Amino acid sequence: MMNKDIFVKLLQQRQFKAVRSILDVMNAVDIASLLSELNDKELALVFRLIPKDKAAEVFSNMNNSMQSYLVEIFSEKELRELLDDLYMDDTVDMLEELPANLVTRILDTISHEDRDTINRLLNYPEDSAGSIMTTEYVDLKSDWTVSRAMAHIKETGIHKETIYTCYVTDHRKLVGIVSAKDLMTTDDEVLIQNLMETEIISVFTHMDQENVAQIFRKYDLLALPVLDAEGLLVGIVTFDDAMDVMVDEATEDITKMAAVAPSEKTYFETSAFSHAKRRIPWLLILMFSSIITGTIITKYENAFAAIPLLVSFIPMLMDTGGNCGSQSSTLVIRGIALDEIRFHDFFRVVWKEFEVSLLVGIVLATANGARIFLMYHNLGLALVISFSLIATVIISKLIGCILPLLAKQIGLDPAIMASPLITTLVDTCSIIIYFSIATRVFAL
Amino acid sequence: MMNKDIFVKLLQQRQFKAVRSILDVMNAVDIASLLSELNDKELALVFRLIPKDKAAEVFSNMNNSMQSYLVEIFSEKELRELLDDLYMDDTVDMLEELPANLVTRILDTISHEDRDTINRLLNYPEDSAGSIMTTEYVDLKSDWTVSRAMAHIKETGIHKETIYTCYVTDHRKLVGIVSAKDLMTTDDEVLIQNLMETEIISVFTHMDQENVAQIFRKYDLLALPVLDAEGLLVGIVTFDDAMDVMVDEATEDITKMAAVAPSEKTYFETSAFSHAKRRIPWLLILMFSSIITGTIITKYENAFAAIPLLVSFIPMLMDTGGNCGSQSSTLVIRGIALDEIRFHDFFRVVWKEFEVSLLVGIVLATANGARIFLMYHNLGLALVISFSLIATVIISKLIGCILPLLAKQIGLDPAIMASPLITTLVDTCSIIIYFSIATRVFAL
Repeated sequence: MMNKDIFVKLLQQRQFKAVRSILDVMNAVDIASLLSELNDKELALVFRLIPKDKAAEVFSNMNNSMQSYLVEIFSEKELRELLDDLYMDDTVDMLEELPANLVTRILDTISHEDRDTINRLLNYPEDSAGSIMTTEYVDLKSDWTVSRAMAHIKETGIHKETIYTCYVTDHRKLVGIVSAKDLMTTDDEVLIQNLMETEIISVFTHMDQENVAQIFRKYDLLALPVLDAEGLLVGIVTFDDAMDVMVDEATEDITKMAAVAPSEKTYFETSAFSHAKRRIPWLLILMFSSIITGTIITKYENAFAAIPLLVSFIPMLMDTGGNCGSQSSTLVIRGIALDEIRFHDFFRVVWKEFEVSLLVGIVLATANGARIFLMYHNLGLALVISFSLIATVIISKLIGCILPLLAKQIGLDPAIMASPLITTLVDTCSIIIYFSIATRVFAL
Repeated sequence: MMNKDIFVKLLQQRQFKAVRSILDVMNAVDIASLLSELNDKELALVFRLIPKDKAAEVFSNMNNSMQSYLVEIFSEKELRELLDDLYMDDTVDMLEELPANLVTRILDTISHEDRDTINRLLNYPEDSAGSIMTTEYVDLKSDWTVSRAMAHIKETGIHKETIYTCYVTDHRKLVGIVSAKDLMTTDDEVLIQNLMETEIISVFTHMDQENVAQIFRKYDLLALPVLDAEGLLVGIVTFDDAMDVMVDEATEDITKMAAVAPSEKTYFETSAFSHAKRRIPWLLILMFSSIITGTIITKYENAFAAIPLLVSFIPMLMDTGGNCGSQSSTLVIRGIALDEIRFHDFFRVVWKEFEVSLLVGIVLATANGARIFLMYHNLGLALVISFSLIATVIISKLIGCILPLLAKQIGLDPAIMASPLITTLVDTCSIIIYFSIATRVFAL
């Protein structure tokens, strides 16, 4: 990649020809990330030096504040040229983030027809298929020949985001799909209706983007047609957007699983204040929940007053329970996210976790029981800890697998049932188990 | 999707014509998942009824045990036909999982040339670009015209996994890239050398598949050329494999972050015994580490013998510290995985987490201090807990952000520095902080 310092030096020396040659051979994505290191004045200067056919792609790869700045300083003409070259879904993505005055400026610039399309796209629910689709696609007719279809693509295809999956429509109803591969490898005179696939995988505008991404991955698709409520073709989702959704959804899940409210911004783009705001609510809830565990402990004051050593096993039991529970909940949450585990698998999951927890519990209990017996020569204590461990492991793993499944069933995001919440719940259980066994065995 | 019961009923009534018609309209991925619900005899029967042009695709979507079974019962001829239609990378994927006797059977069936290619592919390190690439791609020459290129694709393209990115080579050296879109929208007589992109994004055979997937996502690629150590083109990675890698890597990270050794199998495919084996090692390590925390507690026996109430705040402090630490570590681990955070950002991250932890600590300390003062009318206790909380939050967040970065720098997977390990470490710190403050304030 281009070194920033060299680039800035060339700029300062006003060697625009050299700058232009560099921009000419660079990839649009790399140009965008190079621009992000420049100041506003340099940004405006360099953006205007980017070859015309690349400018829109560079623009759609820029971050929001850079886009805002450019939209603000652009002349009417520059803005119109840019918007002409931008894909419809990239324009909508940008509009969703821009300040209101700039949105108005953009809507005033574009054609009446495009404005209607954009307004419709902006109205789809956030994170729905409609909100990530583009309205530009190759539209063929079933009575065309391959050569007519190829001629049509040659004429209109340059402005379509993807031309590799073409859609055969009849009065806007989707009747078939033809891949560019089929067109390129079939004889000219064959009719589209004899070539097209009629078993079509499609989604509706309101489907959640996470499900859209799952379908992409399951069927290895390049593009997926989106239908409106009446079943008419209104747009397509392309694989690059699906890929982004997949990664974003994984990030969202991972973030939620750590008791942080998810953000669409990167770590550094988020301010310390906003970071704190996303972390505090769950911490407060969890902190006050763990006070319950503390309150239960005080009930057993007499027990640890008599045998203070009992207190020293609390962290080990709490941690082990928490870790066991989060192992199970994490595996189940991920299984649900990848559609490998569904609610009707409830009893299979519970039974499997029970088997696993028996195996895990016995190993941990044996290891720790042996250690305690060797260290303290106290068989009673060794047995109390061992049995508490087995019971804790079983309960934690059951709670860990059941809660995400229940959350899914009642329409909550399973990811919130991850380690932190499970840990807090399991803590209470493990303390109760431990002290009831201990007080009974030692007759406290 | 086809209902399994209807399908089995048609099979039992030997209505093969109806079965064949159903298979004819079904998608290969859906057929594979339908087959997974049949018994072995039905599987063999139905597989032979699948239309020829779909059979290989169905096969590559089957799970391993189904593939093994079919390879075992196939005649020499059936096996050869199947292998002819399978993409090279799917064949390699299958071979990596099959038992040795079936691998021999397959290698005996295929041509000498293909056998060499397969052996080479099998030799690339697991999870490298070489191990996920295919050796089939469209190879053009720079002095061809567009129409000659299109004719070449029409002739040979049917067997290529992706024809949408074509590679221009000169003595196996990659000199340019042409997209099918460019070919389809450019006049016939234009020379490839005037159309091709020469700024090529490529990877080497040994690059880790996670980095390969990141490049796909960054540049929205359909395919990525793979070069050998001498810079010659040896294959391409296609977007569907990159998409799978992306999801698999996220799953691997999530699994590791919950202290479970990752598996390539799904939750249900993994036996209870194998689940236990993947979970026990970390649990043992963490269990024995948390004994340290317990040992530290015993040092303060006198303190909680004098004020038993002190014990009841242990779970709250431990949990809050663990949660704060895992929030920070999770965000940093994900940031590293997405290449948004690098080691040279070390001090920026530490400073940001310090700011966040001050904000978070003050809010939590105020809330909990107020509660304790109102409940117990004990200002000393309220202050001890509040200060312990602030200190715990700061230390946890710093540990949480520093460890993943250090792990990355010394070549470990940052994902292992997630909640469980952080929690255990933070526990020890929070207990020490808590009791040193408490013993000082109450002069115990």
